[in-house]
Amino acid sequence: MTQYSSDTIRPIRFEDGNLYLLDQRLLPDETVRQCYTDAGEVAAAIRDMVVRGAPAIGITAAFGVVLACRKARGQAGWRERVAADMERLRAARPTAVNLFWALDRMAREVDAATDLEAAIEATTAAARQMLDEDIAGNRRMGCHGAGLIEPGRAVLTHCNTGSLATGGYGTALGVIRAAWDDGRITEVFADETRPWLQGSRLTAWELVHDGIPVQLLCEGAAASLLRSGRVGWVIVGSDRIAANGDVANKVGTYGLALLARAHGVRFMVAAPLSTIDFDMPDGDGIPIEQRAEDEVLALAGTRVAAAGARAYNPAFDVTPAHLIDAIVTEHGVVEAPDHDKLAELRQRAAAAQDAVLED
Amino acid sequence: MTQYSSDTIRPIRFEDGNLYLLDQRLLPDETVRQCYTDAGEVAAAIRDMVVRGAPAIGITAAFGVVLACRKARGQAGWRERVAADMERLRAARPTAVNLFWALDRMAREVDAATDLEAAIEATTAAARQMLDEDIAGNRRMGCHGAGLIEPGRAVLTHCNTGSLATGGYGTALGVIRAAWDDGRITEVFADETRPWLQGSRLTAWELVHDGIPVQLLCEGAAASLLRSGRVGWVIVGSDRIAANGDVANKVGTYGLALLARAHGVRFMVAAPLSTIDFDMPDGDGIPIEQRAEDEVLALAGTRVAAAGARAYNPAFDVTPAHLIDAIVTEHGVVEAPDHDKLAELRQRAAAAQDAVLED
Repeated sequence: MTQYSSDTIRPIRFEDGNLYLLDQRLLPDETVRQCYTDAGEVAAAIRDMVVRGAPAIGITAAFGVVLACRKARGQAGWRERVAADMERLRAARPTAVNLFWALDRMAREVDAATDLEAAIEATTAAARQMLDEDIAGNRRMGCHGAGLIEPGRAVLTHCNTGSLATGGYGTALGVIRAAWDDGRITEVFADETRPWLQGSRLTAWELVHDGIPVQLLCEGAAASLLRSGRVGWVIVGSDRIAANGDVANKVGTYGLALLARAHGVRFMVAAPLSTIDFDMPDGDGIPIEQRAEDEVLALAGTRVAAAGARAYNPAFDVTPAHLIDAIVTEHGVVEAPDHDKLAELRQRAAAAQDAVLED
Repeated sequence: MTQYSSDTIRPIRFEDGNLYLLDQRLLPDETVRQCYTDAGEVAAAIRDMVVRGAPAIGITAAFGVVLACRKARGQAGWRERVAADMERLRAARPTAVNLFWALDRMAREVDAATDLEAAIEATTAAARQMLDEDIAGNRRMGCHGAGLIEPGRAVLTHCNTGSLATGGYGTALGVIRAAWDDGRITEVFADETRPWLQGSRLTAWELVHDGIPVQLLCEGAAASLLRSGRVGWVIVGSDRIAANGDVANKVGTYGLALLARAHGVRFMVAAPLSTIDFDMPDGDGIPIEQRAEDEVLALAGTRVAAAGARAYNPAFDVTPAHLIDAIVTEHGVVEAPDHDKLAELRQRAAAAQDAVLED
């Protein structure tokens, strides 16, 4: 695969039956790959944010199923063992739908396999394909999204949606990479993204690594930045998109969408089709993970807030579809998204897939 | 003076010719009072945020002038020496108008004094009066502001506007103290307020100290909190209010005002009359301090962002008057503020002052 100059990071590798994850908790100070051979440990790695980002979680869980199958060798009741590990993976985090989509796809491979060795072979091939498809899809998504951007202004992004959040290249950050390579953007503003600081620790690291100029800001500075006219688009990813186009994403996204609309700045969501949950009619039903209060009350392991203070710490929020100018997927762009347009996108994607299979 | 149960903190003390400042950089872990005898050191303390908050900066600078006068004893050219120190104090921070207001008031005392000892006596009396008036004014402001709040919901505040930001009691946090004592609010949500974390370090400490329940949140979580219907008012302070009612305050305030308006949550600014700059026609002219990039790029002294990343770090933003439901001062409330209503408030305050002087 061609390596683009602005695309040099791969967080997930599978080699010799081992899963290697770039430990995102240690970036940017240390570049450490953790090695996994056990699906339960992979579930813990997802929960503890060794790996995060909806597409990356899905791919990681898929390789977790491969590890579950390999571990079942020589054990009685391998299907039950693998099913139990899949439940562990499914329970790791609640909001990102890609996790469930990936596990469902792997479950079909396991169910179709006549024996364990066939299951190992089929799940390994499927997980590898999922990783490769993700990167290829992100490149197409980047191309579609960049095409919407009029040259000459900066973009603002939130959290990390880059190579680290995916198999590689990124969703929203993939669009930004493509737009930078096309000369369409002057620079990138990145929210630091409290409490985990994915912007400061991960997005800035990716952009510096790949030679794209980046300025970090505290979330509170976004409103005056958007008012300044320097930013043409806010571009974010998503953990789950409801069938009507409502978007669950990292907490802070909904506020950015309101601020963008108030200032005439356009708002783009970049996510693979697998992020769209067609069984979820609208955003009200999407479960929002509440994370530990200590993520807010402490900084780098040291308590900052006075003893006795509590914290409100939802990890995600929901942006209603009417605030979104475009949802960009690997299968194309949906402007002013609604239920019918997203359903049509799904049909178009399925038809394209059938055409490929018939070739 | 009566001590209320919810009002036990005094950040600025002047005793035996020394100025003592509670070092806000060390809170909530350590309660350390720094001692100052030199106006240049006081200017540095303001710049380095040993003390912050617009009213507290003004009062601190006033005592700085007292120290300048005392230091000039036995020196030739005392008026020039004091004037030079006043320039140092004036240059400490650019946005809060209370600093300039306090120094102008002290300059009048110095100018009117026949000799240095008279100047020391007059400036000491004026600075003490400024401190006492601030606390008394904050109590009236609290009463006025609390009267606007329908009981039964929470409030959201930003930065620190409490005892620590003033002579005592606080502006926005004074309103919150008064509303809590009146049983009008269920709890306080406080933005952590990156990059300095005044919310986590100072506001939470004050509220816990005084027995008021507080939940901290990252700025990014404010939009979904406001959407939830749990918050009736957003209440903030100000560093400078233009003559038309535009409000400069800690960065993030403008975004909160937009989010509050979008969700039907009311928006209150509590500040002493001295915060209103009647020479500044609107918010566009208010100088916005840009602070060091390291405040964003590092956490607790440790660099977080990748080397090569930059930061956009304005300390303040401007909220246009049309987003503000009420400006609350020690002289009363101005709802839906505009130029004429604020001018009328000033006239009313001056008339009340004249009436007191004529008593």
